[in-house]
Amino acid sequence: MMSKFFSEKFKDLAPYTPGEQPKEREYIKLNTNESPFPPSKKAIEMANSVASKLNLYPDPDCKELTKVVAENLGVKAENVLLTNGSDEILNFAFMAYCDKKTKAIFPDITYGFYKVFAQINGVDYEEIPLREDFTISVDDYIEKEGTVFIANPNAPTGINLPLSEIERLVSNNQNRIVIIDEAYVDFGGQSAVCLVDKYPNLIVTQTFSKSRSMAGARLGYGVASKEIIADLTAIKYSTNPYNINSMTALAGIGSILDKDYFINNCKAVCENREWTKNQLIELGFTVLDSKANFLFAKHPKISGKDLYLSLKDKGILVRHFDKDRIKEYNRISIGSFEQMQTLVSTIKDILEK
Amino acid sequence: MMSKFFSEKFKDLAPYTPGEQPKEREYIKLNTNESPFPPSKKAIEMANSVASKLNLYPDPDCKELTKVVAENLGVKAENVLLTNGSDEILNFAFMAYCDKKTKAIFPDITYGFYKVFAQINGVDYEEIPLREDFTISVDDYIEKEGTVFIANPNAPTGINLPLSEIERLVSNNQNRIVIIDEAYVDFGGQSAVCLVDKYPNLIVTQTFSKSRSMAGARLGYGVASKEIIADLTAIKYSTNPYNINSMTALAGIGSILDKDYFINNCKAVCENREWTKNQLIELGFTVLDSKANFLFAKHPKISGKDLYLSLKDKGILVRHFDKDRIKEYNRISIGSFEQMQTLVSTIKDILEK
Repeated sequence: MMSKFFSEKFKDLAPYTPGEQPKEREYIKLNTNESPFPPSKKAIEMANSVASKLNLYPDPDCKELTKVVAENLGVKAENVLLTNGSDEILNFAFMAYCDKKTKAIFPDITYGFYKVFAQINGVDYEEIPLREDFTISVDDYIEKEGTVFIANPNAPTGINLPLSEIERLVSNNQNRIVIIDEAYVDFGGQSAVCLVDKYPNLIVTQTFSKSRSMAGARLGYGVASKEIIADLTAIKYSTNPYNINSMTALAGIGSILDKDYFINNCKAVCENREWTKNQLIELGFTVLDSKANFLFAKHPKISGKDLYLSLKDKGILVRHFDKDRIKEYNRISIGSFEQMQTLVSTIKDILEK
Repeated sequence: MMSKFFSEKFKDLAPYTPGEQPKEREYIKLNTNESPFPPSKKAIEMANSVASKLNLYPDPDCKELTKVVAENLGVKAENVLLTNGSDEILNFAFMAYCDKKTKAIFPDITYGFYKVFAQINGVDYEEIPLREDFTISVDDYIEKEGTVFIANPNAPTGINLPLSEIERLVSNNQNRIVIIDEAYVDFGGQSAVCLVDKYPNLIVTQTFSKSRSMAGARLGYGVASKEIIADLTAIKYSTNPYNINSMTALAGIGSILDKDYFINNCKAVCENREWTKNQLIELGFTVLDSKANFLFAKHPKISGKDLYLSLKDKGILVRHFDKDRIKEYNRISIGSFEQMQTLVSTIKDILEK
């Protein structure tokens, strides 16, 4: 299907596959780690207030939003770069800090996009196996030369690496860049943003997609030293200076200002997660210790694939990965309490058959 | 300011400079080719209708919007790829069709971003001088090997190349890709979209930023053969699959559906342009024959830079480029009739001093 003109360098390109979004029926969608809650009312109002002014370009520097995000994180505006989702800042990091001489290094089980970013940027990568229990062993990275990408909490396991271990990873070799992808940090993880002032080789990325209920708005960011942010900003201004639209920029400000709503939603997701986890364990599941808005679980009596298909048949979507080490598991996003009740009772029915 | 970690390949990177957006006072902004009219009410309504559902990811395939855009252009959905502004599809084209073996070719006077796209993608480029009268000579491109980028109408001149000349450029060497960047086509140009079915080496790019008053929403697209669109889609899914947010996707549909509003706005801009052009000629300006939403003009008695500075001092922003061949000119975006009246009377005052 590719054209004869497509650059040879992409001949083996295997693009990322997003979670399925079937339209043929209504599903309970527990497959793409979306929030079950709408965005903050303040975010909605602010986004809507600008629609009549869309004839004007957005501020390419995103000054207001950057200020609000930086204040919220306790860093300076010069330490933050906003992007069109956190995928964009991750790609910028691959562009800026990986090349023919500097490979990318990440776990064998993690966000599937890292491998694709390496491919599209024509750089080598090394996958480091997680331990048998799916935890990351920082010792395995200490001696490696290259740019390290760690999702923390990791996906699809949900397992969190303590801040002390992140600091050990970052501090040990300060001649290489370490990217900590904190897409899921607000559900019980510890952020490494507090280390940015201390380590000029650290980049922390976060997103508005999960904990801030803004997956549809596309907003993410990186936090790092002033010099790193200057590098990444040069890449932004060399690819897509107006990468964030005006509505999303204002929605982002609204979301940050509405602190209580954010805190309450994160709390509700964590409570639903713990309830669901306990129910699944009672049903005989092995459930990893997740600090994210999803659970990763397997059952001794039904294969991962079969459970995924049976749930889909009954109108519930979860995410199954074919990869050998994790093919007995499913990743289950945490929805509303009612959705999780339906999930548990549906799984009960499936297991009883 | 760059970090010591920044990949060597970017050591000479010179990012694009967007038009200035000073905040210290209110200007009549005639410097970034924005529309003076708000987006269609239907676009605003549709964008606002989805803000409360932003917790869900957008459809990464943009199926509905793609269908509507394709229908409007008279092509199939498989011939269209939507992007986060047309800068993104242009960058995708540089990624896909330029490499160490295939350079980029474009005029010496054109959209300043092409050079930056070449640099960020690490590919060579050749700039072909415009003729003395600032028109593009297709003959200069006929023998060249490489991927050709032509803005039509061209920027910042506004000059339009007839469709027959575009076809000659595309048809003559069908072993190379030709990209026609039609950001300004709706103000009197002729689109090459009608040639896409005939020439599998043609890509036409368009944007919602100018004629559809949606610069703040970030929406553009490419039109090409099914195979070319497959290439570019592979790049999208390897960099940022959810590149278009839900609000913008719906605003785009609303804009296309509201045909009359679009047509009337384009007509008003063209009328204001012709009025302004005549006024400037009466004042002694040389004004190029623009088919875009801007004019490119110089005056024998005042340098381009001085006119730019005098206008800025009086609260009117136009765009001045330092490049030698065009430094006596200014690019003046077409605003509302009232804005153009103010522009003309302000220039009169400046010239009288």
